[in-house]
Amino acid sequence: MKVKIAGHSGFCFGVKRAINIANSALKNITKEDKLYSLGPIIHNPQVVNRLSDKGLIVIKDISKISVGTIIISSHGAPEDIIEKLKRKKLKIIDATCPFVKYAQNIVRDLKEQGYYVVIVGDKMHPEVRALVSIAGRQRIKGKSKIGIVSQTTQNKENYISEIHNILKGEFSEIRIFNTICRDAALRQASAKELLKKCDLMIVIGGKNSANTRRLWQICKESGVESLHIETEKELKPGSFSKKKCIGITSGASTADWIVDEVVEAIRKH
Amino acid sequence: MKVKIAGHSGFCFGVKRAINIANSALKNITKEDKLYSLGPIIHNPQVVNRLSDKGLIVIKDISKISVGTIIISSHGAPEDIIEKLKRKKLKIIDATCPFVKYAQNIVRDLKEQGYYVVIVGDKMHPEVRALVSIAGRQRIKGKSKIGIVSQTTQNKENYISEIHNILKGEFSEIRIFNTICRDAALRQASAKELLKKCDLMIVIGGKNSANTRRLWQICKESGVESLHIETEKELKPGSFSKKKCIGITSGASTADWIVDEVVEAIRKH
Repeated sequence: MKVKIAGHSGFCFGVKRAINIANSALKNITKEDKLYSLGPIIHNPQVVNRLSDKGLIVIKDISKISVGTIIISSHGAPEDIIEKLKRKKLKIIDATCPFVKYAQNIVRDLKEQGYYVVIVGDKMHPEVRALVSIAGRQRIKGKSKIGIVSQTTQNKENYISEIHNILKGEFSEIRIFNTICRDAALRQASAKELLKKCDLMIVIGGKNSANTRRLWQICKESGVESLHIETEKELKPGSFSKKKCIGITSGASTADWIVDEVVEAIRKH
Repeated sequence: MKVKIAGHSGFCFGVKRAINIANSALKNITKEDKLYSLGPIIHNPQVVNRLSDKGLIVIKDISKISVGTIIISSHGAPEDIIEKLKRKKLKIIDATCPFVKYAQNIVRDLKEQGYYVVIVGDKMHPEVRALVSIAGRQRIKGKSKIGIVSQTTQNKENYISEIHNILKGEFSEIRIFNTICRDAALRQASAKELLKKCDLMIVIGGKNSANTRRLWQICKESGVESLHIETEKELKPGSFSKKKCIGITSGASTADWIVDEVVEAIRKH
């Protein structure tokens, strides 16, 4: 049995940056001060747990805190929440991924220029919720100027198909921005390459991670048997003992040590 | 046998306007002065012949003239030709359709703002040639800002399919303008409605008219037998004597009197 790891895997730029920001904040924090992160800083429970062990407190509800330092997660945060944090006079550290920030700035510009903003992505994902908060309440008029951005982890085929639907309607101008992160595209291409050679694909990453779930979806759609796991604990030896080649890929927020543990567990069996 | 005329037919706004401009110029011209049109002012030989009878001289090659007044046709003219006319100090009357002018202004703005301009339309059509002359020589860079406009008489499905191809490539931003004339869309929809009821469709209009040819193409694609004629002289009685319902539609540059003559000829047979 062969075990092959996808060429493009491991932390992406934005995740690496967010973790570095969290680690250096943890170093600089005094014992009296508290360091929060607004939701998980990245979508990988194992990595987030390690940061929690060092003292980073993940909170969902900001109404319960009034002092301390808070880190905005790599996915960004809604405008109204940031406003509330400022009013509370908490110290804010922004770990929003620069590619997400780029999409946010585009939405802000489009809104200012009178475009009706369409965001293509998962409605409930924090990145999309932050983008929606910037776009604000909007009304579409008959023949309109429409601006379209995508969640950074969307796959391009989905994005094009949504754009296609909008093109079929009435419009005077449509402005489309390619806000899809290059890392997500490379990761998906790398997985597709590996799928040609393997009879089982293991996708490692947070169950709450949009880019990992999309990666898993692509693997499943190829017809090759595919599993989505967070850690080696979820592996069932029976499911891979007869396989000739196992491909391994991981989401943008999956640490290398998690991947190493999975590979080691497979080799042991 | 029934003869039905499409709900939306007759001169479009831009054609009506160009003919009015030509007629009023013909009225104001002195006997010594000459009035030229740069190419046919609209794409209907019969209407152009009537204007020629009144004194409007259609020219293709501006090198042969040095004095007089020249009308820019409803389709517009290339930038370099207009420059040459200005240098020759001819009096220029601009009969470019305002919707074509709108597309021209968009191309000019896009070029100024550093977009790579794509024009979707018939390469050899004067409208497209004028748009291309405004876009000028361009180089596309890897990840680019792309601006797309359409010939005013394109059908939307074609336009969307060309946009779709561009979306599949690399880009940072794509800006799409709906420069398709509403008249062309209404005319096409009207013809489609009539095609449901008729077993022969007659499309009347210039053989050099882009919108008429597109109308004919749509009729043919529906499966209903369809003819494209310029005048009643092209009608062969054998081709429609056994039909139950004849639908009639006409291009944006087809005069009502031409349609009337066709209807009369059918009724006589």
